[in-house]
Amino acid sequence: MDLPTAPAVIDALRRRAEGDLGYPSWLDAPQGGPLAEAFAERMATRYGWRPAPEDVRAYTDVNQALQVLLHVWTRPGDGVAVHTPTYHPFLTTLEVMERPLRPVQFRPDGDSWRFEVPDLSGCRVLLLVNPHNPTGRVLTRQELEELAEHAERHDLLVIADEIHADLTYAPHEHIPFATLLPERTVTLTSATKAFNLGGIRCSVAHVGMPALRKALDAQPPFVFGSANLFGVEATVAAWRHGDAWLEETRALLDRNRKMIAARVPATVRYRMPQATYLAWLDYGRPGMAEVLEREAKVLLSDGAAFGPGGEHHVRLNFATTEEILTEILDRLWP
Amino acid sequence: MDLPTAPAVIDALRRRAEGDLGYPSWLDAPQGGPLAEAFAERMATRYGWRPAPEDVRAYTDVNQALQVLLHVWTRPGDGVAVHTPTYHPFLTTLEVMERPLRPVQFRPDGDSWRFEVPDLSGCRVLLLVNPHNPTGRVLTRQELEELAEHAERHDLLVIADEIHADLTYAPHEHIPFATLLPERTVTLTSATKAFNLGGIRCSVAHVGMPALRKALDAQPPFVFGSANLFGVEATVAAWRHGDAWLEETRALLDRNRKMIAARVPATVRYRMPQATYLAWLDYGRPGMAEVLEREAKVLLSDGAAFGPGGEHHVRLNFATTEEILTEILDRLWP
Repeated sequence: MDLPTAPAVIDALRRRAEGDLGYPSWLDAPQGGPLAEAFAERMATRYGWRPAPEDVRAYTDVNQALQVLLHVWTRPGDGVAVHTPTYHPFLTTLEVMERPLRPVQFRPDGDSWRFEVPDLSGCRVLLLVNPHNPTGRVLTRQELEELAEHAERHDLLVIADEIHADLTYAPHEHIPFATLLPERTVTLTSATKAFNLGGIRCSVAHVGMPALRKALDAQPPFVFGSANLFGVEATVAAWRHGDAWLEETRALLDRNRKMIAARVPATVRYRMPQATYLAWLDYGRPGMAEVLEREAKVLLSDGAAFGPGGEHHVRLNFATTEEILTEILDRLWP
Repeated sequence: MDLPTAPAVIDALRRRAEGDLGYPSWLDAPQGGPLAEAFAERMATRYGWRPAPEDVRAYTDVNQALQVLLHVWTRPGDGVAVHTPTYHPFLTTLEVMERPLRPVQFRPDGDSWRFEVPDLSGCRVLLLVNPHNPTGRVLTRQELEELAEHAERHDLLVIADEIHADLTYAPHEHIPFATLLPERTVTLTSATKAFNLGGIRCSVAHVGMPALRKALDAQPPFVFGSANLFGVEATVAAWRHGDAWLEETRALLDRNRKMIAARVPATVRYRMPQATYLAWLDYGRPGMAEVLEREAKVLLSDGAAFGPGGEHHVRLNFATTEEILTEILDRLWP
């Protein structure tokens, strides 16, 4: 985000900078101390889900958590079902770790997107990104229930990346997948996305599956690192005291997503995101990111990196001020 | 340490708290951005060693780095030579990871300690802790050269934990092991020990062995996590601007280690450490930590946890003010 940090987070970090920086009492616990409690509170308050704090594990980020889970729970050759197009670092992870991608293709459906679940035989994992990056789709209860049926049928571990949940626009509603299949789901999240804290390196994995917790806890105890003081401070402050800032920020993002809709030309297809600060723009032909960088001097993400179904798209990050977004849109669509 | 943070570190952290907390430009580089440069500069300035910044990898702490290195470079059953007694989490690591300990026993030698290197056949690694925890010994060039010969003879990887190097008391001198066997050595260090930053979770591993770098870089790219912004800020500030504070702190610690020598009773053997803020006290019988906690109300580390040769000892952390140390010694030795 191109926005200043929430005041509650700045205050907490400043106080910590002036306080004790030695080993915290919770250092050797894999839950990241107050992190797990703050996560559990937030899930209960916002989403009516009551996860057990002791089932939380701390990681530096969602990408680390995913690689650790795949390393511990799967083998090369095990299939991983993922909605496509998808957040590109996940595609890299599957490729590098030799876990074949089983695409669950998002297809345009009027102003939104739909998907049909293919046969998932041979898969061990459903990697669910909800709210979805890059389309901004928020999956409905019916869609989640359908995915849950497939997960049960094929005995899948569901890794649910829900990092954009706090950036869901009404009337859409985020439903944690773990509320459907608690013992089959790992929920990944972090305050870094909604609160613009990418550098703090602090995320949580709530591991609902007992056998997977056991497998994780059988790893050498420090090999995946441990939670850092400032990351935990910032996350706890954001989750406990950052909601006024979040509401304001989401209102700005909501206006921004609508401004794009008001400005988009007929030659570009824009399905307004239901969550996230990402606009997934269909130009109807490939290579447009390069063209737009050169001609409009706007840097967008090239849709081809997002895998099947992304080729004709660019992704625009609209987490900026109204003024700068206006400038971006003036350049893109003069 | 029971001491306030260096002002240069507080300032850097406060500035960062008020600045950009988003993804730093160096996020995906395994070197931790400015961390590797600051490490290389410090090694050159203080120890006359010029490591290549690109051979640095960032970890949350020395314990993580050790477990990652053992995971990538060795198998269960591979022997690891370590001076004993030793920093107890390393013993836990060897036990949990099933790498048999080959003790290189420190024995009392007048006011200091000496060791003889046993046959290291079957070992794959020499885990060198220098300056040594818990004895506080700073190994001499001659001792390091002898270890280097053994490392060459048995084709060992040398993992050199040199985290206490900045807390070496004159006239003793810290010599980085990597200056002896650059292509066989991994140097582990961190600002967290000398600058009292245990919570920031930021350490470096300089990997001198090309094959080991290749093996590390073949791992999934995020599986071991990534360096955090505040950890890097704090470390860079400590290493580049913290030396005035460090000199003062080391002078205090020097007075403290001597105060212990002046106060120790004839029934307790104290060999003054050449580095570190740890006093390794020989009471001549086991179980003294429990006795002293109960009777003197002073919490010490029980020597038995430090493995062979530790049984009769307790470890006292003297990184505190003169006033508090006086109180501690009044209680221990009224």
